[in-house]
Amino acid sequence: MKLGRIVRPGPDGPVPRLVAVDPDGGYVVDLVTAERLRLRRAGADDDAAARLAAAMFPSSATQAIGGGLAFRDALERAAATEEVEARLRLADVRLLAPADPPAMLDASAFEQHLVNAHARGKREVPDYFYEAPAYYKMSTTTILGPDEEVRWPGGVGFMDYELEFAIVIGREGSDLRPEEAADHVFGLTIMNDFSARDLQAKEMTSGFGPAKGKDFGTALGPWITTLDELDLADLPMIARVNGETWSTGSTSTLTWSIDELVAFVSSGERIVPGEVIGSGTVGLGAGLELFRKLQPGDEVELEIGGIGVLRNRIGQPGERRWTPETKERRAQPTLPTRDGAGDGSRG
Amino acid sequence: MKLGRIVRPGPDGPVPRLVAVDPDGGYVVDLVTAERLRLRRAGADDDAAARLAAAMFPSSATQAIGGGLAFRDALERAAATEEVEARLRLADVRLLAPADPPAMLDASAFEQHLVNAHARGKREVPDYFYEAPAYYKMSTTTILGPDEEVRWPGGVGFMDYELEFAIVIGREGSDLRPEEAADHVFGLTIMNDFSARDLQAKEMTSGFGPAKGKDFGTALGPWITTLDELDLADLPMIARVNGETWSTGSTSTLTWSIDELVAFVSSGERIVPGEVIGSGTVGLGAGLELFRKLQPGDEVELEIGGIGVLRNRIGQPGERRWTPETKERRAQPTLPTRDGAGDGSRG
Repeated sequence: MKLGRIVRPGPDGPVPRLVAVDPDGGYVVDLVTAERLRLRRAGADDDAAARLAAAMFPSSATQAIGGGLAFRDALERAAATEEVEARLRLADVRLLAPADPPAMLDASAFEQHLVNAHARGKREVPDYFYEAPAYYKMSTTTILGPDEEVRWPGGVGFMDYELEFAIVIGREGSDLRPEEAADHVFGLTIMNDFSARDLQAKEMTSGFGPAKGKDFGTALGPWITTLDELDLADLPMIARVNGETWSTGSTSTLTWSIDELVAFVSSGERIVPGEVIGSGTVGLGAGLELFRKLQPGDEVELEIGGIGVLRNRIGQPGERRWTPETKERRAQPTLPTRDGAGDGSRG
Repeated sequence: MKLGRIVRPGPDGPVPRLVAVDPDGGYVVDLVTAERLRLRRAGADDDAAARLAAAMFPSSATQAIGGGLAFRDALERAAATEEVEARLRLADVRLLAPADPPAMLDASAFEQHLVNAHARGKREVPDYFYEAPAYYKMSTTTILGPDEEVRWPGGVGFMDYELEFAIVIGREGSDLRPEEAADHVFGLTIMNDFSARDLQAKEMTSGFGPAKGKDFGTALGPWITTLDELDLADLPMIARVNGETWSTGSTSTLTWSIDELVAFVSSGERIVPGEVIGSGTVGLGAGLELFRKLQPGDEVELEIGGIGVLRNRIGQPGERRWTPETKERRAQPTLPTRDGAGDGSRG
């Protein structure tokens, strides 16, 4: 099953709608329409059919996926509709990002990318990456869909892409073991973690992780493919820039499995339906590893077997409206003496 | 104006409700009830009054604040209600976290905390903290309200608190200048960024920022005070553990102003209504700076003048159900030669 989101015009402007996608058939099923028509045939009146269909298939993928097995069943039934009115040509619709996650993060499941990225900085990969699938938290307020233009923030010199897949969580969980993780996964999509390498390198000296170097835009899409349709052992991954292949990889090179990623993210906290966990970049899956930079106007396509192609164009450089004025160093340490307060124990 | 959230019983379980809080009067106004009764008096029938009141004052503070000035006006009108039915005794209600942010982050606006924290590790504060109010992104799925118990994840040895205020965004914005920021702020609340220092120190060697060391729980509350009620130049800040004062500070020691924080967070991306921006810890506002650790069962109270007191109790240590197995280092760098691909420019 492939779950996507499109926009359709409405009296108060465009409305996001969930769709089941059949890329081979070249069409999508508008799930609200399919469910509404099914309910009508089952004897519901117009109002009730519309109300119930909208409740099962809200605009938000996160809210829909929160419906659990009830949603999965309704999705499969609606996707198989014979109603012509519910089918739209894939070529005619505008796809949105398939997920609207309440939380999104990016892990580091491919050792090769880490080794290459650190080698460029003449550094060793820190031990921690071998002890856990370390991750950084991402912005959920700047998610881009298929064909959306990528903002180029003012002052950025080195614009880059990252070839990744992303896990979409299907069910809440906490402190999971890897063997329990698959039950909590809804499916996979493609993630392009666009990166401003110059900003990122500077801000990561803080130890606080990437922020401005990543948060101007992250693309997800074109849709979410459920796990049952995917051979996770070897999904081919390709990045093309302006039609030229820059990166090729495969999920066969994963250091941390999808199950380990999900289990680790859930440990000591909780994962929630609709949450997105990026895999991290596959080896040689970023310009950083190739000594190549993106330019304004470039078209970047990421392709993953069994999912599809996520295409975005890089925008023109923006302007910085304000730059913080550097502060002076003033403060001296005011730590109490250890004698006075003990060594981390009760004072 | 003070905006909070409480739970009230409903036929399908507890329902979150927005309230205006009058701590001096010792009561809260249930905003939906006040608005519903006002509409009834203005001639609306029961159904319409309930529907309109619920649309203006949804359970989500984020959704409500998104109503902009229409919400602000309705809030002030409802808070001034004379309807006895809409007033509840503050002592009788259970407060929830006043914000349910779509995004939350924690900045570093107080130099003294940074200097002390780095001094404990015998390190200098990196230059970047003086060039920008660096921040890390927080988890929005483990937010705690007043009096909620703080989870103690398995394997944590050094549990700590952080005394902070937090900015709640009122209006969307992007690339703001500091002088434009105040228009985008709804108000302030108190944040306790509970921290597992041992986990945090280890994972921050990745450069990806804190994750497990912070994401087990962050407390917000007891309510949001709007900016017009606060003298931002000198809000006293106090932390007490089991009734003993451990930390005292003031917003007068801010290195980065609230306006600068908001402007910086908005740069190159966007801020959204309901988003929460933590100030960072005030100097000597954490046990880390005092060589003191929290223990299971400790009661931590943070107090900020003009806002109130946020109280939480530390839970009992949990168990780790799973620990990742350390991976072997396998990969060697596979960077192309610079001669072959150029130095970061087009190959």
